[in-house]
Amino acid sequence: MILPKNNRLTEPEVDQLRAIVGEFGCRIQPIVGDVRTIYAIVGDERHELMINRLEGLEFVDRVDTIQSPHKLMDIKSDLARHRVKVGGVTLGQDLLIMAGHCTIDPKNPNLFYETAAAVKEAGAHAIRGGVWKPRTNPYAFQGDNKSLDILMEGSRRTGLPVDTEVMDEEQLKLALAAGVQVLQIGARNALNYSLLRQVGAAIAGKPVAVLLKRGMHTGTLNEFISAAEYIVNFGNPNVILCPRGTQPGLDGYRNHPDESITPLLKERTWAPVVVDPSHSVGKAHYVPACALAAVAYGADGLCIEAHVEPSRGLGDDPKQAVTPAVLAGLIKDAKALHAARRSPRTATL
Amino acid sequence: MILPKNNRLTEPEVDQLRAIVGEFGCRIQPIVGDVRTIYAIVGDERHELMINRLEGLEFVDRVDTIQSPHKLMDIKSDLARHRVKVGGVTLGQDLLIMAGHCTIDPKNPNLFYETAAAVKEAGAHAIRGGVWKPRTNPYAFQGDNKSLDILMEGSRRTGLPVDTEVMDEEQLKLALAAGVQVLQIGARNALNYSLLRQVGAAIAGKPVAVLLKRGMHTGTLNEFISAAEYIVNFGNPNVILCPRGTQPGLDGYRNHPDESITPLLKERTWAPVVVDPSHSVGKAHYVPACALAAVAYGADGLCIEAHVEPSRGLGDDPKQAVTPAVLAGLIKDAKALHAARRSPRTATL
Amino acid sequence: MILPKNNRLTEPEVDQLRAIVGEFGCRIQPIVGDVRTIYAIVGDERHELMINRLEGLEFVDRVDTIQSPHKLMDIKSDLARHRVKVGGVTLGQDLLIMAGHCTIDPKNPNLFYETAAAVKEAGAHAIRGGVWKPRTNPYAFQGDNKSLDILMEGSRRTGLPVDTEVMDEEQLKLALAAGVQVLQIGARNALNYSLLRQVGAAIAGKPVAVLLKRGMHTGTLNEFISAAEYIVNFGNPNVILCPRGTQPGLDGYRNHPDESITPLLKERTWAPVVVDPSHSVGKAHYVPACALAAVAYGADGLCIEAHVEPSRGLGDDPKQAVTPAVLAGLIKDAKALHAARRSPRTATL
Amino acid sequence: MILPKNNRLTEPEVDQLRAIVGEFGCRIQPIVGDVRTIYAIVGDERHELMINRLEGLEFVDRVDTIQSPHKLMDIKSDLARHRVKVGGVTLGQDLLIMAGHCTIDPKNPNLFYETAAAVKEAGAHAIRGGVWKPRTNPYAFQGDNKSLDILMEGSRRTGLPVDTEVMDEEQLKLALAAGVQVLQIGARNALNYSLLRQVGAAIAGKPVAVLLKRGMHTGTLNEFISAAEYIVNFGNPNVILCPRGTQPGLDGYRNHPDESITPLLKERTWAPVVVDPSHSVGKAHYVPACALAAVAYGADGLCIEAHVEPSRGLGDDPKQAVTPAVLAGLIKDAKALHAARRSPRTATL
Repeated sequence: MILPKNNRLTEPEVDQLRAIVGEFGCRIQPIVGDVRTIYAIVGDERHELMINRLEGLEFVDRVDTIQSPHKLMDIKSDLARHRVKVGGVTLGQDLLIMAGHCTIDPKNPNLFYETAAAVKEAGAHAIRGGVWKPRTNPYAFQGDNKSLDILMEGSRRTGLPVDTEVMDEEQLKLALAAGVQVLQIGARNALNYSLLRQVGAAIAGKPVAVLLKRGMHTGTLNEFISAAEYIVNFGNPNVILCPRGTQPGLDGYRNHPDESITPLLKERTWAPVVVDPSHSVGKAHYVPACALAAVAYGADGLCIEAHVEPSRGLGDDPKQAVTPAVLAGLIKDAKALHAARRSPRTATL
Repeated sequence: MILPKNNRLTEPEVDQLRAIVGEFGCRIQPIVGDVRTIYAIVGDERHELMINRLEGLEFVDRVDTIQSPHKLMDIKSDLARHRVKVGGVTLGQDLLIMAGHCTIDPKNPNLFYETAAAVKEAGAHAIRGGVWKPRTNPYAFQGDNKSLDILMEGSRRTGLPVDTEVMDEEQLKLALAAGVQVLQIGARNALNYSLLRQVGAAIAGKPVAVLLKRGMHTGTLNEFISAAEYIVNFGNPNVILCPRGTQPGLDGYRNHPDESITPLLKERTWAPVVVDPSHSVGKAHYVPACALAAVAYGADGLCIEAHVEPSRGLGDDPKQAVTPAVLAGLIKDAKALHAARRSPRTATL
Repeated sequence: MILPKNNRLTEPEVDQLRAIVGEFGCRIQPIVGDVRTIYAIVGDERHELMINRLEGLEFVDRVDTIQSPHKLMDIKSDLARHRVKVGGVTLGQDLLIMAGHCTIDPKNPNLFYETAAAVKEAGAHAIRGGVWKPRTNPYAFQGDNKSLDILMEGSRRTGLPVDTEVMDEEQLKLALAAGVQVLQIGARNALNYSLLRQVGAAIAGKPVAVLLKRGMHTGTLNEFISAAEYIVNFGNPNVILCPRGTQPGLDGYRNHPDESITPLLKERTWAPVVVDPSHSVGKAHYVPACALAAVAYGADGLCIEAHVEPSRGLGDDPKQAVTPAVLAGLIKDAKALHAARRSPRTATL
Repeated sequence: MILPKNNRLTEPEVDQLRAIVGEFGCRIQPIVGDVRTIYAIVGDERHELMINRLEGLEFVDRVDTIQSPHKLMDIKSDLARHRVKVGGVTLGQDLLIMAGHCTIDPKNPNLFYETAAAVKEAGAHAIRGGVWKPRTNPYAFQGDNKSLDILMEGSRRTGLPVDTEVMDEEQLKLALAAGVQVLQIGARNALNYSLLRQVGAAIAGKPVAVLLKRGMHTGTLNEFISAAEYIVNFGNPNVILCPRGTQPGLDGYRNHPDESITPLLKERTWAPVVVDPSHSVGKAHYVPACALAAVAYGADGLCIEAHVEPSRGLGDDPKQAVTPAVLAGLIKDAKALHAARRSPRTATL
């Protein structure tokens, strides 16, 4: 839909429109209103360059496109029947719980093993544990390759899959070689298309899933879903969308909680949504309320920072990790609400 | 706390600080660190002009104040034991449900009477009905004084209190004269201090409550609580804080839902929080999920647009009003969750 | 333009569209694309209720309107040839400079008289002086009626028009009775439609102009221009748009400077734009750069806080008022740039 | 500075503070006010883990740090005397102009050569040309290695240095091997710390500079400066900060122009600031005003998209590239303003 600056275009102007869209196999259909004429693009309008060239014309105000740019992630794509599974849970049926350390302390492996056992006992289906950490401050602890062994040992001891963040090709290779079952793309790499392509290519044909965090700052849903399209495009559709709060944060929270985007994502894409309430609020005592709100909005799962002794943790754990006891209560309440709620489009939810 | 631009101030600079704070009955205490010295203000630091004058000094970077500016609304004020009551419900104990039309249609009073009866039947404790409406577009329907009679007749027929928005002194007088029990200050008037003062003065000593909506655009919590301080300052402490979503809206919602501020408000103020999910999301089919999320975050009540026949409504009703059947389901689910959840600081919520 | 959720609507669905738009004198024209059909509204589509009812249909995704809602403020309205004049300056020709106190100190009238004389000497065409002040904190100094006499005396002594903010009907009447030439609507009242209507009605037929500040928080241009439409609608078209920075502020500035909206406003409306750099940045030493940037973007004038002795000022003056010497330099540089720059659409600006 | 939730801490609570900060070589100094006691951290407080552990204590409200986390980028670091040079221009003395294509068209090398010659003629000191392009849509044109040869041929023909964006290690190696003089880190990789480290390590000891774009979404200044610290930390201090507008965009611009952060950056860091007005506004006809505003705010240079025939360009060029004639006029005006303005802290700017 081309919206011109003036109420009607001249014939030579319309010819310019025709010439441009013609190069992309489209044609122009004017819609003549009483006051104003607008110009529909008939054909496949998803050509970024075509739109840029149209918007570059001085008599064009803007071009609105109405087709989804997501061939694979779109709710109407053939993949819409695909179901992602993690740790024995089929997303979309049961509520998936992932829990564990923000950062594994390479000097205290037992803390991680204890947490892994405790969160399994509390009801978690997968264990999270940070091996490498992105830090705004270059002089902060950035993680340690040794933690990868600790992570996998935690997986073996519990029999549960593990999730860890990878930030570059080297970490990606190490994580896959070690057998990590869920690769996490962090909020700082949500627009790092080189990494998204590398991850997509590396997991093709492998029984591995990707937990894709939403970008750190408030962006569009299109941006979020496009990042997933980059990965799925290589053949492995096991991608999970993870809202985790955005910057700037609300007065008193670490981020601005964004579990409310869940219904909007679910209208556009078939991908499951697993919310991270820990980063959303950033303090342990707010986490249970945020987790429950995520389930209220229809989330398929929760990814929570938990630690047997938060004050001894590294990274964000001293602030935002809940104890296994809190986690157990939270899981119980979340499961009850998940069972009670039905489709957000029905009368009673 | 005065943070200077350089690591240490000279004695004449410190003397300037002393001279300014001395005028306001405060004194300066330097805190000498290894690298840097900062300067604490000892005494009552809540003088806006004192802070402006300190920040106006070229060697001062900024002044951080740590005392709450809210003498009455603060969680530690003597009013913290006050309980607001509406329609037989004590806020903080039971979940308050307010529901009804965005806008009363003066040509179709029966629609409002039917809605009033239906939302009472569904479980609502108070009826909302817009008499006068703020509109971005000056040529849109702005309401009608006749609707005030319809509103009060709805109150009489149901025996329930009614809520309506007032935007200026004339409307305030009319509403109070008619017997409106809950006055609403809308999101566009959240910083209209003249109106806040007029309302505070007018309700002093009267059995009337105020539903104070959060400002239309994302502002600070301080701004929201200060607006309430303006009202309470005149003697009637029956004020209710109402988050209703903020601008800019999330991709697909009318506003950015903000029920997540509830725990942050409750740490700062004793005032009850009643969330408006209808304006937050702006489309009827998203309302139940948002309402449930508000209860998950600890809201004391919900204010919901409902209509017996949404498509015949004026204002926002055709888009965002739920039917009485949806409302009844929503109330049932919300009450169950409200009963299940406990303090957000305990282990299990 | 009605965008449905599915690629094509059924005939009964299209009939529903036709029935609704028919009530408002419009008709539906389908535009059949290869993949999708959209539905144009032919006729005057500026009916808020029509749009709300269309968007309330479950098969409608959204409705895009392309007609300007501003009958009078629109760049294409008959008023586009109107020129606003203040203090002998025709806006759009010469650069208007307004300068003076944030707040007049009723106990020190001479400070204001000295500033008024000094800013006239520096080149200002109008004097600003706050009589009544909106404050987030209800216990801060809120202004004093006595200051109105001081303001007018400043006008008489300099022979220049004066600008002051009014926040309610009482202040409006006092200011007009005293002979204030420029009424200011502050950033906190940008959506206070009752006040906008009162001001519009009160100034009709009078030689008075309105300086309309942009809302305090980032809002749409439509919102800003609509506020002006409320005023002009009563017959006096002497309205000036005043960007003044928006909340949340940039790291280190009081607000987020927004002089960059000037070209966007000028494409939509004929109204002159006078930028307030003082509130935009909030500290005196940043003001000259911001003022110059405003002129770079095509502003028609500047409204600046200035004070002969900033540290003795009330309100924001100790922080953000520039001295007359700084003001004189700033005016010189701004006039040189204003003279040098030409239309932003030509090759060299 | 530790701000507790209550007015005073108990002795055991203070002991907990002491134990934590003691592990990091700091000590606690209480500051006793009339109403409240706060607790200063004496020593080097820049330990992220120490702060996280303090904030994890239930009786702590928040911890404010006042030391800059940027050892090298800080305005007070020893590097503050370092001057970055590009294309014969010493940043901080003369105004640097970089200009050229958003994207090089590998099928039409002559278009780039013509633009390179034309922007040199117009007064540019360096040529920009995109070889690889990040795209939200995975199916859009992503660039071509062949364009790297075209880029370098443009450099040889004009004798000017060239700038191009690299997004991963492979592109980094190719660009350095080819002899690219200015590496660009794009707005989508502003938080990609793996890439920042790879770039820092790769350029150490080489006569190469980095143009570091600000992140795509509004982030803090600290975040921006920290990204530069990652690079400089490896030994090559030739880093240039490039504001380029942030998301969400202003009504009608591609982004929200952010040249106004220039004075704030310059107070914190010694690094030069080169503004990109092309991405800030996103349409060619707004670029000259934005460029001039950047110079008004004290920018050290401009990075502008220019094209001999914008409508034949790829990527953003059809919309946002200016012609060489417009560029020449813009450079003339910008240089005049740059010469006229002086330090933003002096009276006349």
